[in-house]
Amino acid sequence: MSLLVVGTVAFDAIETPFGKTDKIVGGAATYIGLSASKFYDKINLVSVVGEDFPKDAINMMHNHNVNTEGLQIKENEKTFFWSGRYHNDMNSRDTLDTQLNVLESFNPVVPSSYQNCECLMLGNLMPSIQQKVLDQLQKRPKLIVLDTMNFWMDNFMDDLMIALKNVDVLTINDEEARQLSGEYSLVKAAKKILSFGPKFLIIKKGEHGALLFNEKEVFFAPALPLEEVFDPTGAGDTFAGGFVGYLCATKDYSFENMKRAVIIGSAMASFCVEKFGTERMNGLDMQEVNDRISQFVDLVQFDIQLV
Amino acid sequence: MSLLVVGTVAFDAIETPFGKTDKIVGGAATYIGLSASKFYDKINLVSVVGEDFPKDAINMMHNHNVNTEGLQIKENEKTFFWSGRYHNDMNSRDTLDTQLNVLESFNPVVPSSYQNCECLMLGNLMPSIQQKVLDQLQKRPKLIVLDTMNFWMDNFMDDLMIALKNVDVLTINDEEARQLSGEYSLVKAAKKILSFGPKFLIIKKGEHGALLFNEKEVFFAPALPLEEVFDPTGAGDTFAGGFVGYLCATKDYSFENMKRAVIIGSAMASFCVEKFGTERMNGLDMQEVNDRISQFVDLVQFDIQLV
Repeated sequence: MSLLVVGTVAFDAIETPFGKTDKIVGGAATYIGLSASKFYDKINLVSVVGEDFPKDAINMMHNHNVNTEGLQIKENEKTFFWSGRYHNDMNSRDTLDTQLNVLESFNPVVPSSYQNCECLMLGNLMPSIQQKVLDQLQKRPKLIVLDTMNFWMDNFMDDLMIALKNVDVLTINDEEARQLSGEYSLVKAAKKILSFGPKFLIIKKGEHGALLFNEKEVFFAPALPLEEVFDPTGAGDTFAGGFVGYLCATKDYSFENMKRAVIIGSAMASFCVEKFGTERMNGLDMQEVNDRISQFVDLVQFDIQLV
Repeated sequence: MSLLVVGTVAFDAIETPFGKTDKIVGGAATYIGLSASKFYDKINLVSVVGEDFPKDAINMMHNHNVNTEGLQIKENEKTFFWSGRYHNDMNSRDTLDTQLNVLESFNPVVPSSYQNCECLMLGNLMPSIQQKVLDQLQKRPKLIVLDTMNFWMDNFMDDLMIALKNVDVLTINDEEARQLSGEYSLVKAAKKILSFGPKFLIIKKGEHGALLFNEKEVFFAPALPLEEVFDPTGAGDTFAGGFVGYLCATKDYSFENMKRAVIIGSAMASFCVEKFGTERMNGLDMQEVNDRISQFVDLVQFDIQLV
């Protein structure tokens, strides 16, 4: 069994109030894979890069249990590139440049060795590409998680609604939940979105934490209050990677275990933002992960006698 | 022993997307008293109203264990009046009218029967008036909680800094914490504010919950995700009333017990916003309070084995 991860592998150039980077390795699938690899050791990647993509970065994936048989390397083409500048509040950003390059004609191919996966993580991509992956699977995974964003809601809502019918967990942020549902209250938004297909909904609120909903229950995980958020790029993907990696490792898809997975995802995201790009995730050891999870326990646990 | 509550007793006229009210009874001390009364039965009020203030409302306070010996009733004068309109997001509002009336010349007098109080709650008022109450106490209460707002930081920062030296707990919202400290990160803001005098800081984030800091620890309490927020007026005061009422009743001022008090305050605030003004708080019974606290337990509790 394995975890199939589909998403972008990219170059990013990032500016924050703390500094700026040249082109560094990024992309949703990169962050998801690195984060999931802390909990699960059979990760299969489907993505696309150009011939400009560094061998070192592919080796880094191999060192994190990420199989790249499904990573297409397009000769004479260039890797997807995104450049952005974060504002002082670190919650909003301007896109400075987007070069789709290899992504423009991306046709995902699931290698036969990737079939029979336990879990599928569909990173943020055009909904029709996410659907193409679903269509290639001979057997439905135990868990399908889909991440998306407002751009696809603006331009490809019909395709997104089709893909949503097939997924178990949808992850979006609060503004996207409001857009997708037409409801301002997140409780009402969640009810409506769960009627579109997903059995679980995760609403990511950045520094304000994350909410997990199913039809009957709701769980809240805070974000760790940090002295500095250095670079938020990839935090949502790192959250998703920790979430799905933990679930795939424990093979328990109950609400109770999803609560744990949301805490794990939040802990992983809290590391991601401490340095530029994948730097912090790349060097992370399990003792640090365990210590961070303990901080989350301390942050929210209380015992109370009813009065 | 007793809980001394100082703050406004007022008329409010409120518009929200759900409706509007004529003049109804409000004011920080009213909400604090009603909320605290669920947990503690000796509440002493210091405030001021005009002769237009209804006897019924004073009787309502008596019925909630609020002693009004320290409530000045000014003949031929009018009660403080505030009118505001909430925006669709319910987080921002416009003030339509403010008539200070009796508040303009308010000189708080602490009756001798109010001396030797266990806890003091200084509701949002001009800092020099809060200080006048502190100056009248013959014995320092076990716990002093002070609430304030950006208006006093803009106009009376020096007075506020003097008052802060004497308090145990300061409650402000996230923007106010940033303004008071000059730090964007709430973790850095908390460190700085704790150096001004308070031993504990509560940062209220509305629908995003509340953070409790001391020098070494941090605790996070979520807000309950609600289908509708009907009227946010008084939510912060209701939070403070539940917080200080619970602490005064349990007489345990440790960080562990403050965590419980923050959850209690959050639960009380979640009721306040369900109806206009004090209506929901007035009719609340303890079974409802206990049920709501259980919902908070369900919302954030998880058990996790380190991985």
